[in-house]
Amino acid sequence: MNMYATVTPALVEELVKILGSHNVLYDKDRMEAYSHDETSIEHYAHMPEVVVTPLNTEQVALIMKLASRERIPVTPRGAGSGLSGGAIPVFGGIVLSLEKMNKVLEIDEKNLTVTAEAGVITNELNEQVKAHGLVFAGYPMSLETCFLGGNIAENAGGGKAVKYGVTGRYVLALEVVTPHGDVVRLGGKVTKDVSGYDLKQLYIGSEGTLGIITKAIIKLIGLPVVKADLLVSFKTAQEAIDVVPVIMTKGIIPTSMEFMDRLSIEMSCVYLNETLPIEGVGAMLLIELDGTDEGQVERDMIAIGDICNEHGAMEVYIAEDRNTQERIWAVRRNIAEALKVYSPVQSLEDIVVPMGSIADVLPELSRLSEKYDITIPCYGHAGDGNLHATLVKNPESNIEHWNIIEPEILRELYAFIVRELGGKISGEHGIGLKRKRYLKELIPAEEYELYRIVKEALDPQMIMNPGKILG
Amino acid sequence: MNMYATVTPALVEELVKILGSHNVLYDKDRMEAYSHDETSIEHYAHMPEVVVTPLNTEQVALIMKLASRERIPVTPRGAGSGLSGGAIPVFGGIVLSLEKMNKVLEIDEKNLTVTAEAGVITNELNEQVKAHGLVFAGYPMSLETCFLGGNIAENAGGGKAVKYGVTGRYVLALEVVTPHGDVVRLGGKVTKDVSGYDLKQLYIGSEGTLGIITKAIIKLIGLPVVKADLLVSFKTAQEAIDVVPVIMTKGIIPTSMEFMDRLSIEMSCVYLNETLPIEGVGAMLLIELDGTDEGQVERDMIAIGDICNEHGAMEVYIAEDRNTQERIWAVRRNIAEALKVYSPVQSLEDIVVPMGSIADVLPELSRLSEKYDITIPCYGHAGDGNLHATLVKNPESNIEHWNIIEPEILRELYAFIVRELGGKISGEHGIGLKRKRYLKELIPAEEYELYRIVKEALDPQMIMNPGKILG
Repeated sequence: MNMYATVTPALVEELVKILGSHNVLYDKDRMEAYSHDETSIEHYAHMPEVVVTPLNTEQVALIMKLASRERIPVTPRGAGSGLSGGAIPVFGGIVLSLEKMNKVLEIDEKNLTVTAEAGVITNELNEQVKAHGLVFAGYPMSLETCFLGGNIAENAGGGKAVKYGVTGRYVLALEVVTPHGDVVRLGGKVTKDVSGYDLKQLYIGSEGTLGIITKAIIKLIGLPVVKADLLVSFKTAQEAIDVVPVIMTKGIIPTSMEFMDRLSIEMSCVYLNETLPIEGVGAMLLIELDGTDEGQVERDMIAIGDICNEHGAMEVYIAEDRNTQERIWAVRRNIAEALKVYSPVQSLEDIVVPMGSIADVLPELSRLSEKYDITIPCYGHAGDGNLHATLVKNPESNIEHWNIIEPEILRELYAFIVRELGGKISGEHGIGLKRKRYLKELIPAEEYELYRIVKEALDPQMIMNPGKILG
Repeated sequence: MNMYATVTPALVEELVKILGSHNVLYDKDRMEAYSHDETSIEHYAHMPEVVVTPLNTEQVALIMKLASRERIPVTPRGAGSGLSGGAIPVFGGIVLSLEKMNKVLEIDEKNLTVTAEAGVITNELNEQVKAHGLVFAGYPMSLETCFLGGNIAENAGGGKAVKYGVTGRYVLALEVVTPHGDVVRLGGKVTKDVSGYDLKQLYIGSEGTLGIITKAIIKLIGLPVVKADLLVSFKTAQEAIDVVPVIMTKGIIPTSMEFMDRLSIEMSCVYLNETLPIEGVGAMLLIELDGTDEGQVERDMIAIGDICNEHGAMEVYIAEDRNTQERIWAVRRNIAEALKVYSPVQSLEDIVVPMGSIADVLPELSRLSEKYDITIPCYGHAGDGNLHATLVKNPESNIEHWNIIEPEILRELYAFIVRELGGKISGEHGIGLKRKRYLKELIPAEEYELYRIVKEALDPQMIMNPGKILG
């Protein structure tokens, strides 16, 4: 049963009329890259029927009007760096890639804002605003490849979210194309606004299921001028994680508080051909502090170092020069890639728990690891309670076995996180395709019903990125 | 034409069965207090048919089921301290007051959260968490009377929003009763969450038109240990406001940056029997700095003082002891009350503009003041671009004349703020009853249509605080 129309040659011709032939792809070879994202399991992949790369909002609106007229599903796509299958066109139809809407439109120094199209690479945006002494502080770890629009659609978080919060905090205004092809502009260059419903927030993190984000105005802050990194090693992973809530309730707000267990560090070092002193180390915390005041950063650094020492740290290493800081952060940033090389068959998770419960996560990972005979390296944004536990297939077991146990492990893990710890199944990667069935199982029926009502109200034809989050 | 049923004696009896007779008011004298909020113009007032004061969420749910069955409008009410008519039962029906759901349920030091019922007075909540060295930093100026639920329903902001943001930033979780009488719990004690649509954010600031907030989990932060206040006087209001964007783009983030023009200060001083040195002063800025580090606060204070001096300040007065700080803040806090005593017929506005445009607001206020022969004292959260310009009736003109010119002035003012400056008509007081027709005139039809769609989807019978924001 397919509730959607298929993309006919006549429709492709209409798309070419709107976009020009350069911006309409329909040969299989070129479309293949648009059939998946960074979710590692191949069975999530699905081919689009046609890929379009509009150049402006007006073209996006015309495409949506066409899709709405014919009832063709449209899957918006940023850089394809997502980790939950959000950009995979599971019902075929049109993939609408924002890759050519990649301009920074305005840097406004009076209002400390940047206005940009959805397809701009996050790091490129930040390079441009850096020249003005400013930064978009809500960026994710994948900033070198990901697009701003994707950051917003997923409400992405990053390594600096402990202090600066996630993407959503910085979105002052959005331009959104609705499933009907209307263009709405929500918000403005104001920091406070209660003039009507806050629909901007509803689109943030809605994974392209309610509309297509085409433009945004982002709040900037001054670049911090002082920065220090602590790399703290512990004998065991548990000792490292136990100290996180101690620091987080002491009134000091670090910029980052990253956790990396031994396997994660080892694999990333191998991948980068880098060395870190990991003799006898079970895990490390990478803690960053920044600010405008050297004295304050130093005092906070010493206070945190002292707490770590009092709680059994093996070594507190202070990285003060930019080069060493960058080397350490490269290890952290490349863990996901390294673990993929180590074992392409895996499930990169994104659980988030209340700070006071973070110490309870590791024993459950150990239990699951033993029970199912798999490895579960773990790393992530411990200061936010957000851990990227990664289920890795045992190289000796076969893929059929993995395909049976993976959903079982996820179900057990998620139930523990949500029901026992009051956590959530995704902190920054989103529900997408990968987690939707678990979401439905875990959240109360009344809440799920509200999601359904909102989705149906804003996308009554269900053409906007169908099969994601819900259904 | 009335699309709603009326409250019959039989229905009152049903309510008494649910709530007990103590919690159902239906004599006119006692209901009068529930017919208005703090909006000063009496013609907004409207009597409810019955007032209920539920004791718990289950009772709220039962009331909503009853109201839904009979199609009776329900107006949720906090402390009644609102300034846009949001709690006025314009269609009669049931006023549901949260005044008896006023408990702090849990202070969680491990997660730095407080869980409380919607009817707790904001200041009472803060007094309780203060004992733990913590604070809910998103509170509004009316904290001594307002309720937490109302803060959330309006997404209220306050004097400290420049640094700490508004209420919504601190809401981790909400318990909401839907118009159908379902209880939903959204969010959790997690700081990051992309597990499904962020409906919590949709209820925040929705003014009770989508559901009733019954409980919330609020993020707390450590109480700042150092605090300093600067009171800076300028010869003219324009000079004072001109310096605000200069400070706000220098990389220092003050806690507060309040603007008070001469008339506002004078009236408040008279009201409080207080004296401030206002000889030759056109306006003052009240700038607060706080933090954990004395050195940093002092350096920031000096930097801001220098900027003010470079930009024509008459005097930079540093208030370092708590008593003087409290006296100055009392002047600021009591301006609204004082202006009401000065002239009860007035319109307290809440415009918000981009920081770079704040200097353009005062000339427009002067123009309107002259054109319509009224006084427009102005004060407010200048650091957020949020000004409480207050249209005050000329004592010599009659009320009929005022009733004609007030909407004309608002229409002109709002159009200027929105169309010329890219601002919004309300930064923290809300649309409610008072501003809904202007909202409709000023926002694009596509945006208004989305509001309507969302409202209709979540409240298909239109019984939830009808006549507010929309319609």
